[in-house]
Amino acid sequence: MTRLSSKDVLRADQFSIEEIDLILETAAGYERALEAGEILEDMRGKVLSTLFYEPSTRTRLSFEAAMLRLGGRVVSVAEAKSSSASKGESLHDTIKTVEGYADVIVLRHPQVGSAAEAAAATDTPVLNAGDGAGQHPTQSLLDLYTILKEQGKVDGLTVALAGDLKNGRTVHSLADLLSNYDVRFVFVAPPALKMPGEIVDRLRAKGIDVEETDDLAAALPSCDVLYMTRIQRERFEDPAEYDRLKDAYVLTRAILEPAKASLTIMHPLPRVNEIATDVDELPGAAYFRQAANGVPIRMALLSLVTR
Amino acid sequence: MTRLSSKDVLRADQFSIEEIDLILETAAGYERALEAGEILEDMRGKVLSTLFYEPSTRTRLSFEAAMLRLGGRVVSVAEAKSSSASKGESLHDTIKTVEGYADVIVLRHPQVGSAAEAAAATDTPVLNAGDGAGQHPTQSLLDLYTILKEQGKVDGLTVALAGDLKNGRTVHSLADLLSNYDVRFVFVAPPALKMPGEIVDRLRAKGIDVEETDDLAAALPSCDVLYMTRIQRERFEDPAEYDRLKDAYVLTRAILEPAKASLTIMHPLPRVNEIATDVDELPGAAYFRQAANGVPIRMALLSLVTR
Amino acid sequence: MTRLSSKDVLRADQFSIEEIDLILETAAGYERALEAGEILEDMRGKVLSTLFYEPSTRTRLSFEAAMLRLGGRVVSVAEAKSSSASKGESLHDTIKTVEGYADVIVLRHPQVGSAAEAAAATDTPVLNAGDGAGQHPTQSLLDLYTILKEQGKVDGLTVALAGDLKNGRTVHSLADLLSNYDVRFVFVAPPALKMPGEIVDRLRAKGIDVEETDDLAAALPSCDVLYMTRIQRERFEDPAEYDRLKDAYVLTRAILEPAKASLTIMHPLPRVNEIATDVDELPGAAYFRQAANGVPIRMALLSLVTR
Repeated sequence: MTRLSSKDVLRADQFSIEEIDLILETAAGYERALEAGEILEDMRGKVLSTLFYEPSTRTRLSFEAAMLRLGGRVVSVAEAKSSSASKGESLHDTIKTVEGYADVIVLRHPQVGSAAEAAAATDTPVLNAGDGAGQHPTQSLLDLYTILKEQGKVDGLTVALAGDLKNGRTVHSLADLLSNYDVRFVFVAPPALKMPGEIVDRLRAKGIDVEETDDLAAALPSCDVLYMTRIQRERFEDPAEYDRLKDAYVLTRAILEPAKASLTIMHPLPRVNEIATDVDELPGAAYFRQAANGVPIRMALLSLVTR
Repeated sequence: MTRLSSKDVLRADQFSIEEIDLILETAAGYERALEAGEILEDMRGKVLSTLFYEPSTRTRLSFEAAMLRLGGRVVSVAEAKSSSASKGESLHDTIKTVEGYADVIVLRHPQVGSAAEAAAATDTPVLNAGDGAGQHPTQSLLDLYTILKEQGKVDGLTVALAGDLKNGRTVHSLADLLSNYDVRFVFVAPPALKMPGEIVDRLRAKGIDVEETDDLAAALPSCDVLYMTRIQRERFEDPAEYDRLKDAYVLTRAILEPAKASLTIMHPLPRVNEIATDVDELPGAAYFRQAANGVPIRMALLSLVTR
Repeated sequence: MTRLSSKDVLRADQFSIEEIDLILETAAGYERALEAGEILEDMRGKVLSTLFYEPSTRTRLSFEAAMLRLGGRVVSVAEAKSSSASKGESLHDTIKTVEGYADVIVLRHPQVGSAAEAAAATDTPVLNAGDGAGQHPTQSLLDLYTILKEQGKVDGLTVALAGDLKNGRTVHSLADLLSNYDVRFVFVAPPALKMPGEIVDRLRAKGIDVEETDDLAAALPSCDVLYMTRIQRERFEDPAEYDRLKDAYVLTRAILEPAKASLTIMHPLPRVNEIATDVDELPGAAYFRQAANGVPIRMALLSLVTR
C-alpha cells in the first residue's frame, strides 16, 4: 500500500489499520530525513491553501511548516471570518474558488461537518484541521505517533485520558483511533465531564478494557500514558461550574510520585494550569515533543493525499 | 511586443489592443504550462508584497498563488488597516517603505485613486487589486480571458451585464475593456441601478450597439454571455431599498430555459443568492472557472510588469 | 570571527565591537549580492517563524523579505494576540511549541523582557523585533548601518537625536550602540521629553561628548546626522500635553537651511508630520533608504544566528 483510499482526511476513524501504518511510516521517514538535514522536494511546485475560520496558530503553523519542509508553498488565510464569508458566501463557494488556486486545502471551521461539506464540493484534497466539536484527525494521528515514538509500541499499553472527557473532541478521536490496537483505557474525569456512554460502549464492544474513575491519584500507578486535557471555559454555559471544576486535575510532581518512571505525559496544548511547569523537566513530559510531531504527521498526510 | 508600456497596472482602460493580446497570450501560455505540470521559475528570487487595506481573500490568494506558481515568493499583509496606517502613516510613506522589501506590490485600498497615488510614489511596479469604487483591472482582464476561453472568440458576441450596473466597478471596467472588440451589449438592471449614462454614451460613441432593459427573461435568448453581479448591501444608504431590489435578478434554471445552450454564465463572486446553486451544474456555468482564471492572468501581469 | 557569541539577538548592547563589525560586513556582503542580482540559498530548507503580538507591518515584512531573499521560508503570525495566547497560554509554552516548527523565531511582544524570556525557553535562536518599551536591537543595527553607508564612517561624526528622547526605545538603543564609536551627541528635546539622565551619565562615563538642548535650529549647523523621532500619542497619559508638544520639532526645508549640505536625515518611521514631505527630495533624506537597510541587516542576523 502506498496510497490512501480517500483523497480527504476528515475523521480519525476513516483509516484502516493498513492506512494508519502507512501514515505512521511515512511520517517516520520524513522525520528521519529532516533530522539528517535533507532538503525535501516532494511537494515542489505544489501550493497549499490554509483556510482558518477560527484562529489556531499551532495547527496552522504546523501544517504550513509541514508543506514548506516538503518543498511546497503556502497561501494562508489566518482569519477567514473577516473575509468573503462575511459577505455571505457559502463554504461550498469558497472551496470551489480556492480549488482554483491550490493543490490541497487545510480547513479549520467552527461547524461540525464543515470539512465533509468542503470535501464534497471539490476534487482537491481537503484536510480537516478541526471542525468545531467534531473531528480533528491530524491531532489524533500525531497523538498516536507520539505514543508509538515515546513508548516504542502501542499494543499492551494502559492509556489514561484525563480531564474534560465529555466535550473533548481530541480524546474522543484518540480513543477511537487507539481502539485499533490492543490497549487498556482508564478514563479519569469528574462525574459531570465523563466520557460519553456511547463511546465507552463502542470501545467495549470492540473488546477493549475500559475503566472509569474520578480519582487521578489512584489511577496513575498502572498507566503507561497519561493524556491530560484542558477544561475549556468556552464549553461551559455556567461560569461557576467552570470555576468549580477547572482545577480538579492539576498535574504536579507530587501527584506523579507513584507513577511508573516510564510514564509518558501528553497534552494537546495549549495548557493553562493543568500541568505544573516543573513537570516539564521530567523525561516523560512529552507534550512539546508531541506538538513537534505534528510536522512529520502533517507532512505524511499532505504528501499522501496528493499522490 | 513583449513588454507593457507602463510598469503599473492601474486601470482596465490603460492597455492598447496589442497589450491586451500580449496579456491574454502570456496567460494562456502559463495556463498550458501549469496543465502540463511544468514548474516555472520566471520569478525565481523575486518577492511580491501584497498590501490589502480591505480584506479580500479571493483576490489576495489568487495573486499570491500566481506569484508562487511563477517560482516567486510572497510577503503578505492581509489587514493593512490594523498596522502602520493606524499610526497615521500616509500611503505614500508605506509604499516608499515596502519598495525596500519587494520587487512588485499588489495594493487593495478602499479609496478611489489610491493605486495611482501608490504607483507615483515608487519605481517598483504596482498592481491595483481594487481601489474602492474605482478600478479593479485584473478582474476585468480575467473576465475577458474567461469569455475568450469559454466562447473561443470575443468579436461578434452579445454580452449581457445584469444586476447592479450603477455601482458595480466590475461591470464598468469590463464594458470599457470589451469595447475594444466588436461586441453587442445588453444592460439589464432595475431603473434605480442602471448603467451610468456617461458609460453608455462612451460605448455608443465607439460604435458599440447597446440595449438597455430591466427585463432579464426577455433579454436572455439573444445572449452569448450573461454576466451577473451582486447587489451589494454596502452600496445602499437605505436598507429598505436594498431589500426591495436584491432579489430582482435571481438566476434559476427555469429562467434560463429560453437561453442558448452555449450561454456562458459569469459572476465575479462571491454570490449570495443571485444564482441558484442548481445552475452550477450547467456546462455554461463558468463562474468558478472564471475565478480560477485569475491565476494565469495575474501570473501574466506579474511577469510582464517585472520584465 | 565568523559567528556571534550568543544564539539570540535580544539587546543592542549585547554585541562586542568585533561582533558589530561582523554583522555590518555580512549585511554589506548580502546587499552587494542582491544588487548584483544573485539568488541566495544560504537559508535553503530553513523555516523562520515570525510571532507578532503587536502588529508591525514594517518590521515583520522586513524580516520575512530578508528570510526569503536568503532562500529560506516563512510561517507568519501577524496577530498572535488573537490566537493561543488568548486561551491563556504562556509565552514560554508558545515558544516551546513554535520551536518544533521553525529553525529561527522573530518575536514582537508588548512586554519588556519578553524576548529574553522566549530565548531562555528554547535552543532555537530568537530575534527580538521589539519588546515594548524595552529593546529593538535590529532597528539600532540598521540605523548604525545606515549612518555608516550614508557618511562612509562613524568615528568623528556629530549625531543629533531629536524629538521624544524620554520614551523612545529606538534612540536609547542607538545611543548605546554608537557609544562604541568616537561620536559626539546632541540630544534635542523639550524639557519634558529629555533623554533619561542615566543614559546621559552612562555615555559621559564612556568619555562621549554629550550636549543637551531644546533648540533644534541652534543645534543643526554642527551636525552630520539628524535622527528625528516621532512623538507618540500612546506614550502620553495627558492628551493636552501631547497636543502641546507634538509639533515642537517639525523638520522643514526652511529649518534645514543652516545645516551642512552633507547632513544625513534619519527617522525610524512611520512619520506623522515630524518631517515635511518636501524634505524627502533632499539628497540627505535617508529615511526610506534606512528602512530598506533593514533587509540586509536582518539577512545578516538571520544567517549569523543559524550558523
